Amino acid sequence: MKKLFWAFLLLAGAALHAQQVTSPDKNVVLTFKLSANGEPTYELTYKKKPVIKTSKLGIDTKDVAPMLSGFTVDKTENATFDETWAPVWGEEKSIRNNYNELLVTLSQKAQKGRYIRIRFRVFNDGLGFRYEFPEQPELNYFVIKEEKTQFALAGDHKAFWLPGDYDTQEYSTTTSNLSEIRAKMTTAVTPNASQETFSPTGVQTPLMMKSKDGLYINIHEAALIDYSAMSLNLDDKNMVFESWLTPDAQGNKGYLQASAQTPWRTVLVSDKAGDILMSRTIYNLNEPTKFKDVSWIKPVKYVGVWWEMITGKSTWAYNDLTNVHLGELDYSKTKPNGKHAANTAHVKEYIDFAAQHGFDAVLVEGWNEGWEDWFGKSKDFVFDFITPYPDFDVKELHRYAASKGIKIIMHHETSGSVRNYERWMDKAYQFMVDNGYNAVKSGYVGDIIPRGEYHYGQWMNNHYLYAVTKAAEYKIMVNAHEAVRPTGLARTYPNLIGNEAARGTEYESFGGNNADHTTILPFTRLMGGPMDYTPGIFQTKISAYNPDNNSFVHTTLVKQLALYVTMYSPLQMAADLPETYNKHLDAFQFIKDVAVDWDQSYVIEAEPGDYITMARKAKGKDEWFLGAITDENARTANITFEFLPKGKTFTATIYADGTDAHYEKNPQSYAIKTIKVTSKTKLQQKLAPGGGAAISIK
Amino acid sequence: MKKLFWAFLLLAGAALHAQQVTSPDKNVVLTFKLSANGEPTYELTYKKKPVIKTSKLGIDTKDVAPMLSGFTVDKTENATFDETWAPVWGEEKSIRNNYNELLVTLSQKAQKGRYIRIRFRVFNDGLGFRYEFPEQPELNYFVIKEEKTQFALAGDHKAFWLPGDYDTQEYSTTTSNLSEIRAKMTTAVTPNASQETFSPTGVQTPLMMKSKDGLYINIHEAALIDYSAMSLNLDDKNMVFESWLTPDAQGNKGYLQASAQTPWRTVLVSDKAGDILMSRTIYNLNEPTKFKDVSWIKPVKYVGVWWEMITGKSTWAYNDLTNVHLGELDYSKTKPNGKHAANTAHVKEYIDFAAQHGFDAVLVEGWNEGWEDWFGKSKDFVFDFITPYPDFDVKELHRYAASKGIKIIMHHETSGSVRNYERWMDKAYQFMVDNGYNAVKSGYVGDIIPRGEYHYGQWMNNHYLYAVTKAAEYKIMVNAHEAVRPTGLARTYPNLIGNEAARGTEYESFGGNNADHTTILPFTRLMGGPMDYTPGIFQTKISAYNPDNNSFVHTTLVKQLALYVTMYSPLQMAADLPETYNKHLDAFQFIKDVAVDWDQSYVIEAEPGDYITMARKAKGKDEWFLGAITDENARTANITFEFLPKGKTFTATIYADGTDAHYEKNPQSYAIKTIKVTSKTKLQQKLAPGGGAAISIK
Repeated sequence: MKKLFWAFLLLAGAALHAQQVTSPDKNVVLTFKLSANGEPTYELTYKKKPVIKTSKLGIDTKDVAPMLSGFTVDKTENATFDETWAPVWGEEKSIRNNYNELLVTLSQKAQKGRYIRIRFRVFNDGLGFRYEFPEQPELNYFVIKEEKTQFALAGDHKAFWLPGDYDTQEYSTTTSNLSEIRAKMTTAVTPNASQETFSPTGVQTPLMMKSKDGLYINIHEAALIDYSAMSLNLDDKNMVFESWLTPDAQGNKGYLQASAQTPWRTVLVSDKAGDILMSRTIYNLNEPTKFKDVSWIKPVKYVGVWWEMITGKSTWAYNDLTNVHLGELDYSKTKPNGKHAANTAHVKEYIDFAAQHGFDAVLVEGWNEGWEDWFGKSKDFVFDFITPYPDFDVKELHRYAASKGIKIIMHHETSGSVRNYERWMDKAYQFMVDNGYNAVKSGYVGDIIPRGEYHYGQWMNNHYLYAVTKAAEYKIMVNAHEAVRPTGLARTYPNLIGNEAARGTEYESFGGNNADHTTILPFTRLMGGPMDYTPGIFQTKISAYNPDNNSFVHTTLVKQLALYVTMYSPLQMAADLPETYNKHLDAFQFIKDVAVDWDQSYVIEAEPGDYITMARKAKGKDEWFLGAITDENARTANITFEFLPKGKTFTATIYADGTDAHYEKNPQSYAIKTIKVTSKTKLQQKLAPGGGAAISIK
Repeated sequence: MKKLFWAFLLLAGAALHAQQVTSPDKNVVLTFKLSANGEPTYELTYKKKPVIKTSKLGIDTKDVAPMLSGFTVDKTENATFDETWAPVWGEEKSIRNNYNELLVTLSQKAQKGRYIRIRFRVFNDGLGFRYEFPEQPELNYFVIKEEKTQFALAGDHKAFWLPGDYDTQEYSTTTSNLSEIRAKMTTAVTPNASQETFSPTGVQTPLMMKSKDGLYINIHEAALIDYSAMSLNLDDKNMVFESWLTPDAQGNKGYLQASAQTPWRTVLVSDKAGDILMSRTIYNLNEPTKFKDVSWIKPVKYVGVWWEMITGKSTWAYNDLTNVHLGELDYSKTKPNGKHAANTAHVKEYIDFAAQHGFDAVLVEGWNEGWEDWFGKSKDFVFDFITPYPDFDVKELHRYAASKGIKIIMHHETSGSVRNYERWMDKAYQFMVDNGYNAVKSGYVGDIIPRGEYHYGQWMNNHYLYAVTKAAEYKIMVNAHEAVRPTGLARTYPNLIGNEAARGTEYESFGGNNADHTTILPFTRLMGGPMDYTPGIFQTKISAYNPDNNSFVHTTLVKQLALYVTMYSPLQMAADLPETYNKHLDAFQFIKDVAVDWDQSYVIEAEPGDYITMARKAKGKDEWFLGAITDENARTANITFEFLPKGKTFTATIYADGTDAHYEKNPQSYAIKTIKVTSKTKLQQKLAPGGGAAISIK
C-alpha cells in the first residue's frame, strides 16, 4: 500500500511537475505547470524577482470544446538556439538570436486526446510564447471566442498606457499606476476619426511598465499573422491582465484552421531601461525573410507636400465640392479652390529642395481625384489610386524628379474602404511601377468598410499583409498609416519600412502632443517596428502657417533634431516646409547629415516618460549621431562617448537648446558649436524644458 | 372673404390634389397623393378593380432626418414613352417599351426644402416606381434604416410565396392565402447551407398572387444596383406588405450618396395569367446596354460533369482529406479517392457526347484544387480558381474541346468567400481567356465572408455586378448561382446569361421538388430574368446512380422535355448522364432540337401552381417548340396552334406521357408520334400526374 501511495504521489507530481526553462544568462526563469484542474499556467521571474505571477493560459472557443482545462502534459521538449542574422535595415547591422526553448504538448482526455502545443522561448531580455494547433483528426477548423492568456503582475506598477481600442492608437499616453487606469480612462479617450474602446480597464500593447522594485516590463506580441490583434484587459483588484482580442463584425475573435498558431506573446524585462530599447526579441521571434532579392529595399530620407495640409495652410482637395461621384465628375470643368498644394509647379519646388539638400524622395499627398468628400462619409468608391487631379502632371513630374535623382513617394489613402483598395491594388501598384514610384504611404483613416470590421481584427490584419506581400511582387516599399501596430513582421517582409500606428507629429497640429510623448514612444510603439513619426518641425507655432490654428509643437527646435536619432526609422521625413528650413539652414544641416541606417546603436541613458539619450553609428561609415531628449522638465543629459573607437579624436557638432529655450515660450532658441571628442569625453549637456540636443560626429 | 376661402380651398386641394396617370390602354390607373400628414401615398387599380389600396411611400433614415412625412408637392411632370428594342437574347427578338410616366418632386419644409422625387411608370401590365435622391445642399450622404414602401392589398389573396430570407431562395414555394403565411412559415423554412429569415410573415419577391376576383398580381423589383434586395413583410391583420431590405453586418440597410435612386418597385397585374408570363416591364425598366460589341454573347446548350456529383455517384473532391491548406498541399502526393469525376478522360467523354449531339459546351465542376474541405468551414482562402487537380489537364482538354468545336464552361465556386474571389478574379478570368473558356458558372454556397454580410445585402449586390462587369472586360458570360435573384439587369449587362436564385433541379436529388414547382417558377423566379434550372433528367430515381439516395425527380420524363420551353433560359443544360441519354435517344432528340433563343413566345394557357402551356418560335428559323406541364394532377392540355403561320401545314413531333405514366410510379413511360398541324389545329393532349408534353414543329 505504501509503495502504491508513493508511486501515486510521484505520478501525480509528475503530472503537475513544473517545467522550467531559463535564459542563456540564467537571469530569466520561466516555469510552466498545470493547475489541479489541468489548466496550463506559467510564471516568470527575473533575477529571482517576480515578473509574472502564476498566470493561466488557454483559448475559449465558440464551436468546438474550449481549450482551457482538463489538460495533461503529453510531452516536453527542450531546445537551444543561437544565431546571428543581418537585417535588411535596422538599428544595427547584425542581430543575435539566442534563446532556450521549452515546447509543451498537452492534451485533453475529454476531447479524445485533442492536443495543442505551447512553445516558450526564453531570452536574456524576456519571454516569448505562443499556442500551436497541430493538424489532427480531433482538431480542424475552429472559431475563437476569446483568448485567455493572463499576465498576473506582481504589483501596482507604473504603466505607460493607451486605452484599449479596436480602431485607433492615436491617443496620448497616460502615465499612471495600474490601479488608476479605471479612473483615468474617460479623460484618456480623446476623440478620433475611428475608435472603439471596449473596457474601462482595457489597454493596448505594447504596454510599458516599471515596478516599484525597479523592473522594466514590456508586454506585446510578435508575428501577428492571420490573427486578431491583442489588447489587455485589467482585473484591477488582482492586477491581472488578460488578453482581449479584436472582434469581427459578428463578435467572434478568430477563425483558425489547424495547423495554425497564435502570434507570440512577449514579456520583456530588465532592471535597465536601455535594455528594453535594445531588445530585438520581437524581431527574433519572427521568421527570417524568404525574399531573394532585397536590393530594391532602401531606407529613405524625404520631404513632402503634407505638413502644409496638416496645418491647414493648403488642401488635399482640388476644389470645394462636397459631393463627388468618382469617375463621373470631370474635374477639369470644376473651379479649383486655389489652395491645392499637390500641383506640378509646387511639387517641383519640393523636388528642387530635396535634390539641393541630398534627400532621396518627395512624398506628395492630395495628388489624386477624390479628396473633396473622402472623409467621414463611409464612402465605398472613394479613390481609384490612379487618376491625378488636373494640375498634377504625373508624367512630367516623373521626368523631372528622375532628372534630379529624386523619387516621388506615392500616397494611397484608402479612407478605410478596403474592398475598394483591393479592387484597385494591382492597377495602383502597376501605375506606380510605370511612373517611377517605388514606395507608397498608405492610410486607413475612418471606420473600416466592410462595415462592422475593425482596424485591428483578423480580417484587416490579413489585408495589411496582403498589401505588403503584393507590393513586394512589384518591388514596392510600404509605409502603412492607421494600420495595426507592428509586431516585428518587417523581419519577414522587409519592404514594410514603416507604420504610423500611434499619435504622430500631425497631432502637434491637432492640439499638440505631450512634452514627454517621445520619451515614451520608443518604449511602447517602437517595440514592434519603426514609426514614420515625421519630425523636423522648425516652425513650432502652427499659427504662422494658418492663423486659425493655435496649436504648437510641444518641443524645442533642437529636440526635433534629436528625434532623428531617438525615434529610429528607416523612413525619415523632414516634415516642415522648405521655406522654413531655408531660414535655419544651420540647424537643418543635422537633418541633412543624419543617417537613416545603422551599424550599431547605443543607449546612453533612458527613463521612460522622462529622457532618452541614444547614439548610433551610421552604416558603413565612420560617422555617429547622438540624440538626447527630455520631457517638460529641463535636464542635464549625462552624455558619454564610449561608443567611439578608442584612441582617436573626432569632431562633434553639437546642436543645443539656447540657454533660455523653452518648448512653448522660446522654442527656436538654439546654438550650434563644434568640439573635439574622444571615447573618454563626458559631456553635461543642458536640455531645455521640452528640449534636446543633437550631435553629429565625424 | 368668400374669394379667399375658395382660393384657400383650391390651394389646399392643390396640395392634396391627387395626381393620376394611366396605362396607354387606360386599364391601369395609378393615383398619387399626399396624406394630411404630408406622407406620399399611391394606389393602383386595374379595370377599376383595386390592386393596391392607398399605400404609403417613404424612406426611414439613420443619420439624416427621415423622408416619411411633412412633404409638399413641388412639381409634377408627365411624359410618355413608346419604343421598341432588340434584346441580345430572349423570349422574343423585339420588345416594346410603352408607358406613361408621372414624376413627382416633393420636399420637406422642415428639412430646409430637402427634396426627393418619385417616378411612376404605368404600363399596360402594371406599374413601376422608384425613389430618386437628387444632389443638393440639403442631401448628400445618408444611411437607410428601412425603406417604408407599402403594398396594401385588396384582399386575402392566394399567394405563391417563399419565406423572406437574407441568404437563400432555395425553399419550396408555399401556396396559401396571405392570412395563412404566419401559420405555415415554420414548415416552409426548410434547412439550407446559408439562411436567415427575419419575420414570421416575411416573404421574398418576386411574389405572385391571385385575388378572389381573378386578378393576377406580381410584386418584384427592377434594376437592383448598389442597393439592398427587397423582401416584403406582411401585416396580416390589414393585408399590407411593407418593404423590408436586407441589412448589412451592422443592421443598416443601405449607404447612399446623392444623386442616387432606389431600384424600381414593380406591381404587375392582369386578369390573364399569361400576361404575367409575357410581361417585359421589368426589363423595360432597366437601362439599355452600353456594350458596343455583343458578338461574344451567345446562348448555350450544354451538358456537364455535375449531376453525377449532385446525386452522390461521384465527388467534386480529388481525395478524402478533411483539411487542405491551399497552395501548400501537394495534391500529386495525395491518394485520389477514385471517384473524382472531373478527370481528363471522363471530361473527354462528355466532350465527345456534346459534339456528337450538337451541344455547344460542357460544364465541368470539381476541376480545381480545394474541394475536400470547401463547405461549411467558413474558409477564407478556399479556392484560387486557377489550379487544376492533378488529373485535370487544362491544356489538353482545351485542345481536345476546341478540336471538336466544343467549349468548356468554367466553374468558380466561391464558397461565399468573396474577398478571396475578388483577389483572384482578374487572374481567374485571364486564365479562362488563356485556356479557351468564355462562360463561367459561379457559386456562393454558404455564409458570406466578410462575415456578417448577407447574400442579398447592398455589399453583395455590388459584388455580383462587379463580377459581371469585370467579366465583360474579358468577354466572359456569367451564370451566377446562389447570387441575388435577377431584376432585369441582363438588359444592361447581357453577359449575365443566367442565375440560379431558386430551388433548382439539384433539389430533386436532395429530397425532391414539389410536383407543381415548375408551374409556379415562371410566375415568380423567372420574372426578373432566366434561371439555369438544368432540367433534362431522364433517370428520375436517384438510387439508380447512388443506392444511398432515395430521392426521385417529381416529374415524368416528358415533363423534363417540356421544361426546355416553359422554363425560358438562354443557357440550357441537358443535366443527366450521357449513358442515360443513350438509352432514350428518341426522347433526347427533343432536347437536341429545341432552340435556346427565340423570335417570339406565346402562352397557350397557364394557371400558376397548376399548368403552363407555352410555345416559342426559334430565332431566325421556321421552327416552333411547345411545352405543356401540369402539377401533381393529370390534365388535358388544350393546345392550339394559332401561333403558326396561316395556310401552311407543318410536321409536329409530339413527345407525350404514356397513358399509364406517373411522376413517381411510372415516370419513364412515354410515346412519340408525328402528326400534321396547321394554325387551326386543336389538340387535346393528356398530361400524366407530374407530367407534360413537348412538341417540336418544323
